[in-house]
Amino acid sequence: MQAVLFVSHGSKSPKARQEVDALAARLSASLAPVIFESAFLDVDKPSIPEGLEACVKRGADRITVLPNFLNSGRHVLEHVPAIVQKFESEHPGVVCRLLPHIGSHEEMDRLYLDLIKQTSC
Amino acid sequence: MQAVLFVSHGSKSPKARQEVDALAARLSASLAPVIFESAFLDVDKPSIPEGLEACVKRGADRITVLPNFLNSGRHVLEHVPAIVQKFESEHPGVVCRLLPHIGSHEEMDRLYLDLIKQTSC
Repeated sequence: MQAVLFVSHGSKSPKARQEVDALAARLSASLAPVIFESAFLDVDKPSIPEGLEACVKRGADRITVLPNFLNSGRHVLEHVPAIVQKFESEHPGVVCRLLPHIGSHEEMDRLYLDLIKQTSC
Repeated sequence: MQAVLFVSHGSKSPKARQEVDALAARLSASLAPVIFESAFLDVDKPSIPEGLEACVKRGADRITVLPNFLNSGRHVLEHVPAIVQKFESEHPGVVCRLLPHIGSHEEMDRLYLDLIKQTSC
């Protein structure tokens, strides 16, 4: 069974956490009945291993991990992949697939330009 | 004359910096002849005041500031606005307008779902 784990950085700001939770709830509803869990690299909980574990407990054996990051910093290139690989090595029946980070989506440029054009002074 | 200042967080990762620079170059080309500058809240340079100053030196008196952030954490809600407001108070002839952060664009949900659907296992 497939699952999606949505991985955000985590923030000290309650407002940022509310936004991520609301976004995760919308994505979960859109993807249902696919198993969907949300996790955080740092600051917030659940952690990435906890999120992966939650997917497995719900019956997932294929987990698609979506990094909610704008750029290929060390979090995207090193930290998240290392955590996912460690989990995979400890769970031989589970296959994880790491998606590109959201900032790499080909339509992002258009969204930046659209924001500027919608609201410029 | 109008300008756009593109404000990113800044990163210790050279790859992330390259991505932001490439994105800024594409946005600049798309918005030409509008003055376009890129700046960073932390880690990288130019700083936000340096970026705003660069816009003014190029003749801008209206500066649209686009925060390249996914969530309304303290950077978006407090740090960037405070820096922009301080600059405005020190430059009475210049009007700055702070746009919503990119993560708040109404089409973001669709991009997350699209990434998942394009590439899920």
